[in-house]
Amino acid sequence: MAALPIAPAPAALPSLQLSAKYSALHVDAARTNATLEASCAWGNTSDGGMDRLTCNNDDKSVRDWFIAETKKYGCHQRIDEMGNIFAIRPGQNNSLAPIGLGSHLDTQPTGGKYDGILGVVCGIEVLQVLHASNITTYAPVAVVNWTNEEGARFPPAMLCSGVWGGEFTVKYAQGRQDPEGHTLGGELKRIGYLGPTPCSFDANPLLAHFEVHIEQGPILDVAEKPVGIVRGVQSIRWYNVGIQGREAHTGTTPMDRRSDALLGAAKMIVETNRIVTETDVAPRGGRATIAVVNSSPQSINTIAGKVSLGLDIRAPADSDVELIERQCREAFAVICQQHGLELTFDNFWASPALNFDPIMVSCVKQSAAELGCDMEIVSGAGHDSVYTARKVPTAMIFVRCRDGVSHHPAEYSREEDCAAGAEALLGAVLRYDDYIRR
Amino acid sequence: MAALPIAPAPAALPSLQLSAKYSALHVDAARTNATLEASCAWGNTSDGGMDRLTCNNDDKSVRDWFIAETKKYGCHQRIDEMGNIFAIRPGQNNSLAPIGLGSHLDTQPTGGKYDGILGVVCGIEVLQVLHASNITTYAPVAVVNWTNEEGARFPPAMLCSGVWGGEFTVKYAQGRQDPEGHTLGGELKRIGYLGPTPCSFDANPLLAHFEVHIEQGPILDVAEKPVGIVRGVQSIRWYNVGIQGREAHTGTTPMDRRSDALLGAAKMIVETNRIVTETDVAPRGGRATIAVVNSSPQSINTIAGKVSLGLDIRAPADSDVELIERQCREAFAVICQQHGLELTFDNFWASPALNFDPIMVSCVKQSAAELGCDMEIVSGAGHDSVYTARKVPTAMIFVRCRDGVSHHPAEYSREEDCAAGAEALLGAVLRYDDYIRR
Ligand SMILES: NC(=O)NCCC(=O)O
Ligand SMILES: NC(=O)NCCC(=O)O
Repeated sequence: MAALPIAPAPAALPSLQLSAKYSALHVDAARTNATLEASCAWGNTSDGGMDRLTCNNDDKSVRDWFIAETKKYGCHQRIDEMGNIFAIRPGQNNSLAPIGLGSHLDTQPTGGKYDGILGVVCGIEVLQVLHASNITTYAPVAVVNWTNEEGARFPPAMLCSGVWGGEFTVKYAQGRQDPEGHTLGGELKRIGYLGPTPCSFDANPLLAHFEVHIEQGPILDVAEKPVGIVRGVQSIRWYNVGIQGREAHTGTTPMDRRSDALLGAAKMIVETNRIVTETDVAPRGGRATIAVVNSSPQSINTIAGKVSLGLDIRAPADSDVELIERQCREAFAVICQQHGLELTFDNFWASPALNFDPIMVSCVKQSAAELGCDMEIVSGAGHDSVYTARKVPTAMIFVRCRDGVSHHPAEYSREEDCAAGAEALLGAVLRYDDYIRR
Repeated sequence: MAALPIAPAPAALPSLQLSAKYSALHVDAARTNATLEASCAWGNTSDGGMDRLTCNNDDKSVRDWFIAETKKYGCHQRIDEMGNIFAIRPGQNNSLAPIGLGSHLDTQPTGGKYDGILGVVCGIEVLQVLHASNITTYAPVAVVNWTNEEGARFPPAMLCSGVWGGEFTVKYAQGRQDPEGHTLGGELKRIGYLGPTPCSFDANPLLAHFEVHIEQGPILDVAEKPVGIVRGVQSIRWYNVGIQGREAHTGTTPMDRRSDALLGAAKMIVETNRIVTETDVAPRGGRATIAVVNSSPQSINTIAGKVSLGLDIRAPADSDVELIERQCREAFAVICQQHGLELTFDNFWASPALNFDPIMVSCVKQSAAELGCDMEIVSGAGHDSVYTARKVPTAMIFVRCRDGVSHHPAEYSREEDCAAGAEALLGAVLRYDDYIRR
């Protein structure tokens, strides 16, 4: 992946050496993996992965578990109006907002047991380490379960960290609908997780946000490194594309008298792929995918009159996402012209490229260095940390996953790599707590 | 459309001059159109067309109406185990099977008010003419409502005339499922139309079968003729195509490490179109369409792992359908190779090209000639007459429809053209009745 221009570091970074009190603390690998196992007791695992869509009954069950589990380690909980759960362990100075350790417990429909889940589990492991050693951090610490990070059931992704970070209004987010027309707000209410706390940084602040996440790509696996330092996140835009043609009989309508919306859609899918594999943007890491298609009237002998597509464009640089978008728009217009189709092209979500906070990244770097890891990565996926970064210093740790496979039931990270993620997180959080205390 | 080789006519066609008793009979145009209107009282007409899928509650209502209506003109009814309804008006010689006047009352989801419906309505108009003039034909006459001709809810098309004609077993047909998993047998039972009569020519024979249908193509409209003589029906095959790829993250999976089932499917749709528009089969009238697509897991940030397509191939000659199929298979295999996909390719329905019975066609020709019409057409669509032709002499009459539009809410035939269809049917039936009597 091409480089994201890195933000200039502060002229002099403070020392981030761990204090004596903290330097003896370590995670328990077996316990970390047992917690991961426990957190996967709910959800459809029949394909070997995890299918736990936002606000289904399994999501309710794992939330109940999350609350019971974090209570054991001295936390009280705050649930906000987007169902985000903050499990807060008090510090010495509770006038400070907590240092957040967040990720998500929802998954893709064909997801794995690591994407998001591992980040919450590593947060819980940090709580367990502190609890077992009877340590009170200077700042409070909060493990956060962000709602609907995947956006699989209620697009877009990172929706509820997005509300907290000021990108979306509560009204917009609560009103998002699944394909059956259920709203996120209604579903939160149904499962008892429409909480009383306003969903915003102002009403319910954090001091900072760390997130462990599986890499979901092949870089660490190829480099044979358990963890990596995430420098930033690439640019993402999502689109709803609508194509209107004309229904007609497949058997009687001459080929040259058709406005076949599905043929047009197919050409758009092929063209989108061509743009990111054969033009200028390809070597700069441009990616574009169409994974959602709906066609009407879905009758084998009636030419499709209406098709909708979901388009996902990404690149390290915002300008390349814009370029791919422009090329798609132009290509789609030509296809519509050629087939007598009408187009709607709605960019309903944009997440610009971003760099994480240099001090937070330094905390991760020093912590990872103790595990012999110094690899820096730009994330290809979006994460809740993208939106926390709008409000508070944020950084991320990536954990190696086998063959870079994610959003697939075969997604897998080794037990020792999961524990390395927790260890890197522990070191980073304690370094930041030391830094705040000074 | 290229010519279908016409079957040799018998050495000497019998005279098909109408007897004096019959030659004064004519249809009533206003009454025909009033019946058409009445038959459209049930079904979703909100888009200006007609959405009345097989065995929904509207289909039940229009069947009840059909029975009540045909009773008025001296008919008793027989309902078979596929829900086909035979409304039989006795003749002078009831040891003969009835002359069938059949078509269908089910529609496409985005269908019109004429496809199928007009054929049943023209049959009822013939009954009304006979009834009003107090005529008893020599052979009995039966107006038939065939179940699930469209195949839109329960593919394939012409399913229940197909059972009667020996193409499908009752078990196969009753077990066909809609996308929600309801079976045709279960739905027939639910609406009270799973009848006691065995569904077969042997158990419940007809003597012959005439069918009026809108053309659904542009030939008559261009020629400015109200009706046409259908010489035969082109070759049709339907396929289920399955494409298996690999789910993966849209943001993190490099473009060259994907097995994107939807990209493969899109290339197949484009390639199928290319085959019938740019290769040898194009000038010979080959047509191929993909109008059904289903993709999984339908999440905008997970590359599609599984796609299914519905493919419809047609041509006047069976050999061209086979050629198109072969070319599609080859092209699809190359695409799968290129993208690491697995293919299944299931030809679940084939309806070979056929010529109608020369004496029946002559009856239609002479009757149409009295309306100044002599245009002969090969049907691009399949019809119930395809399967009655397996067992009994069969012919069809086409009625002009505006711009050749069908399987679309804008489908339309003028009142005078609908009446011309009924008039041509009346003349053809009476000619055949005279022919049988002699
Ligand atoms: N990590 C992850 O899969 N997040 C979902 C948002 C995205 O599609 O990048
Ligand atoms: N007439 C008609 O639309 N029949 C359905 C079968 C076909 O697709 O040709």
